[in-house]
Amino acid sequence: MIGIDWGTSSFRAFRIDAAGVVRERRAAPRGILAVEGGRFEAELRRQVGGWIEAGERHVLMSGMIGSRQGWREVPYVSCPAGLPEIAVGLASIACEGVEVRVVPGLACEDAAGTPEVMRGEETQILGVAAEIGGAALACLPGSHSKWARLEEGRIAAFETYFSGEAFAALRLHTILGRLMREGAGDDPEAFDRGVARAGEAGHLLHHLFGVRTLGLNGRLGEEAAASYLSGLLIGHEVRAALPRGGAPREADVQLIGAAALCELYARAIAAAGARAKVHGEEAAERGLALIGREVGWD
Amino acid sequence: MIGIDWGTSSFRAFRIDAAGVVRERRAAPRGILAVEGGRFEAELRRQVGGWIEAGERHVLMSGMIGSRQGWREVPYVSCPAGLPEIAVGLASIACEGVEVRVVPGLACEDAAGTPEVMRGEETQILGVAAEIGGAALACLPGSHSKWARLEEGRIAAFETYFSGEAFAALRLHTILGRLMREGAGDDPEAFDRGVARAGEAGHLLHHLFGVRTLGLNGRLGEEAAASYLSGLLIGHEVRAALPRGGAPREADVQLIGAAALCELYARAIAAAGARAKVHGEEAAERGLALIGREVGWD
Repeated sequence: MIGIDWGTSSFRAFRIDAAGVVRERRAAPRGILAVEGGRFEAELRRQVGGWIEAGERHVLMSGMIGSRQGWREVPYVSCPAGLPEIAVGLASIACEGVEVRVVPGLACEDAAGTPEVMRGEETQILGVAAEIGGAALACLPGSHSKWARLEEGRIAAFETYFSGEAFAALRLHTILGRLMREGAGDDPEAFDRGVARAGEAGHLLHHLFGVRTLGLNGRLGEEAAASYLSGLLIGHEVRAALPRGGAPREADVQLIGAAALCELYARAIAAAGARAKVHGEEAAERGLALIGREVGWD
Repeated sequence: MIGIDWGTSSFRAFRIDAAGVVRERRAAPRGILAVEGGRFEAELRRQVGGWIEAGERHVLMSGMIGSRQGWREVPYVSCPAGLPEIAVGLASIACEGVEVRVVPGLACEDAAGTPEVMRGEETQILGVAAEIGGAALACLPGSHSKWARLEEGRIAAFETYFSGEAFAALRLHTILGRLMREGAGDDPEAFDRGVARAGEAGHLLHHLFGVRTLGLNGRLGEEAAASYLSGLLIGHEVRAALPRGGAPREADVQLIGAAALCELYARAIAAAGARAKVHGEEAAERGLALIGREVGWD
């Protein structure tokens, strides 16, 4: 089968054999926003037509390709949801000579009834869930970080944190950015200071102003201030998302995503007294292979 | 005497008689950023030269005019500070025919040693403190809201919240703004919903993402979303700044500032179970008059 992780800005394809092993990979900056006029089928054939000609008959796609802006909007499946529920929610797309299905996103509500959604992350999380089993906590850092609670191989519930996008807006469009040197690299020590600050008394909105006063007082350098702000936001997110007084096992976090960002989250998680295990980008291909097996494509 | 509240973007002058009563007022959009080449004395004479010619010999200025970007940088005075400490910290500026003094800003540190500063607000707060006496809590809403604890007529400590500027950056420069109608007016009901959300479990960074999901789900209209976001941020600020389990008297908040913004804060304070009393823009003139009396200018 062919598994495809088709997001807003990138396209990644995997040729997966009957044993669930990835035999070939392909990646292109052809996210759904780059595909003009909704010509997704043409793009698909351009990218993996060779595999189809070579005999692949099944294509499974996850990510924003299943959103309103994608090829076909697939309704969200409600949590708790695992492989069986997602298999039932798959949408079929008619394509000559090949069976194409799209993975649904997941929806849930927090305790107060506010809706939550994800699209694409569910496939990555299930790719990791198979490996760990039992109860666990998964985190996918990003512009809108997702934290998901796993129970018996299912995603029981999840919540989203706006930290990544808030960081960008605060750095680029507030007075805080005026004390930051443009293009300054990562400063792990300043990041850790921001994380430590997040663990102190006080609300994030108060801690933010400290970025400025520390800078004005010469206690936070221009080249370090962006890393400090990043640590402050990630530190707040991690402390809010980690269960309080949970068993150590439940406080272990399965981090899924790009290595550099996962490394930062792992530092913040360690500072909060929990442990992190980092999973690479292979989570998506593993999740696609598992969903394919669930529908009998192996 | 002549009292002047000279901030970043505005200039307000008061002619105050020996009884501390304001006899004349003048206001102009001539904040320190609008005065080119540091010609503050010329600007002062343009605005209130007539009062000086009429016999006023004392000019007292507060606000950003005492900052590095102003006429003369006046060192901060450390909290706790009241009228006597501020009188000692006044800086004199040589000006022909008139005695000019500048009110110092205040500095303090929070429990973790992070610095805090204010410049101009101390004068407004002391203008109100005289009226209430004893222990109290004052809040000056704005881009960088100040919350000050008053004890026996002195500002014991204060802290700043970045809510106002964070609101502008989140609304104008993140995906949250895409679901907001430009130019939508205030929506008190949506504001109250945001305030209520701030009182529910969950971190601000998680609540922010809810602005998007509620919008996508049709549960928060385009014309209401900005007010909801405002309520969310102000609600978080108010709950963080109010003392927990304090005596009711200490939970009363003296709000000082523009009427419309104070009204929003008063709603959020009421929702958190405390009470607010709104003081208008007269706080600055009263504070200037009191400092003038403290140095014998009456």
